[in-house]
Amino acid sequence: MGTRYLNEYRFFDPDPVVRKTAFELYQTVKNLPIISPHGHVEASLLFYNDPFPDPAELIIIPDHYVYRMLYSQGIALERLGIPSVDGTEVETDHRKIWQIFAENFYLFRGTPTGIWLQHVFSELFGIEERLNSRNAMLFYDVIQEKLKTEEFLPRSLFKKFNIEVLTTTNSPSDDLKFHRSLRSVDLGGKVIPCFRPDVLFEISKDQWKKAVAELSNQSRIEITCYRDFIKAIEARREYFKTNGCVSTDQGIESAHAHKLSEREAEEIFSRALRGEVSAEDERRFVANMIMEMARMSSEDGLVMQIHVGAMRNHNLEIYKRFGADKGGDIPVRVEFTKNLHELLNSFGNNPNFTLVVFTLDESTYARELAPLAGHYPAMKLGAPWWFHDSIEGMTRFREQVTETSGFYNTVGFTDDSRAFLSIPARYDLSRRMDANFLARLVARHILDIDEAEQVIRDLAYQLPKKVYGL
Amino acid sequence: MGTRYLNEYRFFDPDPVVRKTAFELYQTVKNLPIISPHGHVEASLLFYNDPFPDPAELIIIPDHYVYRMLYSQGIALERLGIPSVDGTEVETDHRKIWQIFAENFYLFRGTPTGIWLQHVFSELFGIEERLNSRNAMLFYDVIQEKLKTEEFLPRSLFKKFNIEVLTTTNSPSDDLKFHRSLRSVDLGGKVIPCFRPDVLFEISKDQWKKAVAELSNQSRIEITCYRDFIKAIEARREYFKTNGCVSTDQGIESAHAHKLSEREAEEIFSRALRGEVSAEDERRFVANMIMEMARMSSEDGLVMQIHVGAMRNHNLEIYKRFGADKGGDIPVRVEFTKNLHELLNSFGNNPNFTLVVFTLDESTYARELAPLAGHYPAMKLGAPWWFHDSIEGMTRFREQVTETSGFYNTVGFTDDSRAFLSIPARYDLSRRMDANFLARLVARHILDIDEAEQVIRDLAYQLPKKVYGL
Amino acid sequence: MGTRYLNEYRFFDPDPVVRKTAFELYQTVKNLPIISPHGHVEASLLFYNDPFPDPAELIIIPDHYVYRMLYSQGIALERLGIPSVDGTEVETDHRKIWQIFAENFYLFRGTPTGIWLQHVFSELFGIEERLNSRNAMLFYDVIQEKLKTEEFLPRSLFKKFNIEVLTTTNSPSDDLKFHRSLRSVDLGGKVIPCFRPDVLFEISKDQWKKAVAELSNQSRIEITCYRDFIKAIEARREYFKTNGCVSTDQGIESAHAHKLSEREAEEIFSRALRGEVSAEDERRFVANMIMEMARMSSEDGLVMQIHVGAMRNHNLEIYKRFGADKGGDIPVRVEFTKNLHELLNSFGNNPNFTLVVFTLDESTYARELAPLAGHYPAMKLGAPWWFHDSIEGMTRFREQVTETSGFYNTVGFTDDSRAFLSIPARYDLSRRMDANFLARLVARHILDIDEAEQVIRDLAYQLPKKVYGL
Repeated sequence: MGTRYLNEYRFFDPDPVVRKTAFELYQTVKNLPIISPHGHVEASLLFYNDPFPDPAELIIIPDHYVYRMLYSQGIALERLGIPSVDGTEVETDHRKIWQIFAENFYLFRGTPTGIWLQHVFSELFGIEERLNSRNAMLFYDVIQEKLKTEEFLPRSLFKKFNIEVLTTTNSPSDDLKFHRSLRSVDLGGKVIPCFRPDVLFEISKDQWKKAVAELSNQSRIEITCYRDFIKAIEARREYFKTNGCVSTDQGIESAHAHKLSEREAEEIFSRALRGEVSAEDERRFVANMIMEMARMSSEDGLVMQIHVGAMRNHNLEIYKRFGADKGGDIPVRVEFTKNLHELLNSFGNNPNFTLVVFTLDESTYARELAPLAGHYPAMKLGAPWWFHDSIEGMTRFREQVTETSGFYNTVGFTDDSRAFLSIPARYDLSRRMDANFLARLVARHILDIDEAEQVIRDLAYQLPKKVYGL
Repeated sequence: MGTRYLNEYRFFDPDPVVRKTAFELYQTVKNLPIISPHGHVEASLLFYNDPFPDPAELIIIPDHYVYRMLYSQGIALERLGIPSVDGTEVETDHRKIWQIFAENFYLFRGTPTGIWLQHVFSELFGIEERLNSRNAMLFYDVIQEKLKTEEFLPRSLFKKFNIEVLTTTNSPSDDLKFHRSLRSVDLGGKVIPCFRPDVLFEISKDQWKKAVAELSNQSRIEITCYRDFIKAIEARREYFKTNGCVSTDQGIESAHAHKLSEREAEEIFSRALRGEVSAEDERRFVANMIMEMARMSSEDGLVMQIHVGAMRNHNLEIYKRFGADKGGDIPVRVEFTKNLHELLNSFGNNPNFTLVVFTLDESTYARELAPLAGHYPAMKLGAPWWFHDSIEGMTRFREQVTETSGFYNTVGFTDDSRAFLSIPARYDLSRRMDANFLARLVARHILDIDEAEQVIRDLAYQLPKKVYGL
Repeated sequence: MGTRYLNEYRFFDPDPVVRKTAFELYQTVKNLPIISPHGHVEASLLFYNDPFPDPAELIIIPDHYVYRMLYSQGIALERLGIPSVDGTEVETDHRKIWQIFAENFYLFRGTPTGIWLQHVFSELFGIEERLNSRNAMLFYDVIQEKLKTEEFLPRSLFKKFNIEVLTTTNSPSDDLKFHRSLRSVDLGGKVIPCFRPDVLFEISKDQWKKAVAELSNQSRIEITCYRDFIKAIEARREYFKTNGCVSTDQGIESAHAHKLSEREAEEIFSRALRGEVSAEDERRFVANMIMEMARMSSEDGLVMQIHVGAMRNHNLEIYKRFGADKGGDIPVRVEFTKNLHELLNSFGNNPNFTLVVFTLDESTYARELAPLAGHYPAMKLGAPWWFHDSIEGMTRFREQVTETSGFYNTVGFTDDSRAFLSIPARYDLSRRMDANFLARLVARHILDIDEAEQVIRDLAYQLPKKVYGL
């Protein structure tokens, strides 16, 4: 396989001893099924099983990793065909969009996005060259042609990707009809929902009342007070659980968790219903709902996930013109030791509770996260997320947490992906980096090879299955 | 020695040039005497010189590094025989405890605890295998047998470990009778106390009044006001100093140092005597006592150590049931530049003052600690502490501070250990990691080999002797 | 060249594959002209073209990197001949000063200062040994002798250093007479000013009124209110621009940017004129002036630079006795995501605006800086500054930002140097470290060699030229 475009030994340390061991460890896990415990692919994609439209629609337009980098170099989102929400006209010639992308492909040098894209081009579409301005249309044609074939339909790819479990992210009022329909389809694996109630907790946002109305509607519980609200959420969790759900997720800027008194919660809730809440009300309500979600998880057993530290929609102009999730979410500093104190003291010793924490603030890895996970039975560390889902990012994660939390308080890899095609690329990269990290330990006689072989299998497959109860 | 269980080249980089140089540098210091300027072994251990009881009592029950990891994976402290303070019955069959430990020994993969334990098993007890569920009782028997022998008595081990100075940590009211008695014993080295007055500064805690009473008693100074309190502390420092003490230590969550006016200090102190202090009072009093301790050190010459950034007893349930120091101390973010401003401006240029700073917040290494130590004559950097006393932790410390503070504003290694048997393992690891760091510099032509040879000797032996005046 | 004192392969990884590639990449850029977009050398140095006085005056007395390290080990600044501002007598025998420096040269082991000094001794003065107490006077004599020659005059060195653009840092009231005079001198490159208005924004400082008076004088605008003040600054920017200036710079402790209302700004300004401002007034005024400077840059096109996070003159005793910039500036923690929110929302999408951000807080590299630069078209990342302008510091910068911002949202190297002779050493080190970083990517098959060759040329030469419009 030495003549292939993507080198077999890619991403491994150049040291021959480390490289050889890393390669051997990687071989033992590269074909294991994918357990994806958290992501953003839609179940409807697999239900309808329609062909993907074209290369630009597949690779550029839905992926903010791709177009934020182009935007940072002055390429307007209009020119990339990103749909506007304010009526701005955008480029509709997808070949033109692809050409711009190809001309600027050099911007992705040294980035994980570049690595995932090259994996997709080579491993999936069999194109063994580097994209540039000259071969742009050749790439376009080859990809376009393949997308029309049976082999590239979503369900075929699901099987080809060897996915055992794919977790989607769902609104609390989702009826999960696609998930239920997919249960009778032979995909070679499962598609399960994750309960993501953020929209219900952002009480100052315009869409909140609509979200509460939908919650009421789906749960068949009339919501006139906080107590009804909690009951309705519990009902929806139960519904999700009976439809295969094993986890919840919350995206929060701060990890601050604090239970309000029943009375305080009712007061804020009734102000919210009247549309009279302050930013401080929302902060307190969110902190309270983190506690409530933990309490519910300790009762119904759904694994609680929190993604902490993204300030959403930083670029207001882009938000107004193109909407949310357009590459303008920027991390902020976070704090866990004090902010999670009440939560961990209430539920951290509870054997029925599992909390998986993701963060964008690496300075907390060794200082707060590893010590907390290395003590509390309930707490586990999520994989490097987003900007840290990368060669150096994953390496720093292992280097900074392992010595305190060990391997067994982490939960394997999570792709968090919106781009279905990039899923195998991400697991492949993650498995390579774990192999490399373990090979470094073996080469320095910190682990024996048989230990490393067991650890890499646990990281790639057993730990996520165990922690998420799959 | 190539057939030994523990590889001679362990922990060194796999690169052959680095490894060879690291090994050679390590050889020049591996047998140097141990200077332990800060730790938690008791002088009474050496005074009584009783045999260690059994493997579980020796290795598991006293070491929160060990049982916190087991606890994080759901193993109750009761099952590990950790003595409760609330009357909970705990496991008394030490073979059972050892078996649980052995079955879960894989949790320590890649951790410094695992490394220290394997060092103890192999180098001290001569067991050349990896602990697991099957050989658990074999380990137990071998260790048990050896513990009964003369060779494994504390004083024999003290000599065997080649300890030149062992520093204990002592309450300000300790009469130091064990230290005084040990002076006439031939240990092959010295056992000296360190003055640790935290209990006197935590004015909101229940035990504070008792601590003040003991201080009064030992110092023979009646304490009715803040001025008396200060005099009594000064008297106890003098007593410690005449009994071999060369340093003080404070464990503080924040580095904030600020001198109160005499009147403010008297007011808070008198509120404390009446049991009427607030949390804010305590914070201000601690900040004031950091200044007072610095002032006293600038007068009596005791080296001032501060260990900054641990939030104590995070897990209140564990604290209530098992007491303090049970693995539930979790780091918080710290700040030095502003917090130490007043202290360094008062004493940082004083040639009679030395401040050694330890931290659990690595984000301050390059940003604050190295620049401060690289400017103020009084300030030196303590070794990586606790969760950072590890292969990657020590490497990050050297990488992040050396370029700004140089080697000569650091003070060598500090074990901070409660586990007497792990002391040689820790110094060995530290010397290996310094050798490896220096070998990387030599391999990149940043240092010449003769410079590296001098630096490693200074780090391992000369610097701690010089800074602590030993 | 294998027999030279400074190894040709210095600072490259020991791995033979990485080293060979790094060396080859370095060869392609080592002789490229120097583009220095920010520094502290004076234009007058090149105008007068006087010989440098002597080794101590050249290397020790003007360089706080050098004497802060000596000071940190207890060597008084008086003994090093640092001019006092309070009348303290200082050493005048420069041979004595040099001898002290030489005796303590071992303190610089493993520091970038040590590396720059050895580069200067060997590459510039041809001394092929390590400085120590015995050869101190030999070094002194050789350097002294050479400094008298034509070849070592500032203009000769400027040519020899192959400087294409040297940027100085100038007071807003500087008449730029040296820059104007130098335009007709054949230096082989340009000397251009940078507009640094900090002194105008520090409204609580004693020298503020004088600075405003000078501003008024130079701009010929009478300044009686905030509006006049703004006009005068705009006039001075215009004057700088017509004299070759392409950028501004601000040194700020916090990145907080917030536009005051016209009325608030006028009120604070008039309080300042009356000498009645508070610290809070100054903070608000600085935050406002960051916004104003951004607005002006978006209009006149000068690149806006901010150097964030240094607390100035931390050591008040040294400040009182020796003045500012004496090694007592210490970094503090900084925040960008929230603090730059208003600025980036006002100007971050503006194609006429460029903001280059430098910081001393590495914990913001991956968390805040790379994500912001990887999204906003206006924002670029400055080179590792000051304590991070070092082997490990530059490596951490590339490792932590590249995966999110890519290479093309960074702006090449900036020396920020006060020491004219150290300029080539710094660019050489920077080029070596970029070569090494890229070689690691090539060795791991993350980049192809032709990509690395293009990137290193862009980093060393094209990017700074492009970003600063040179």
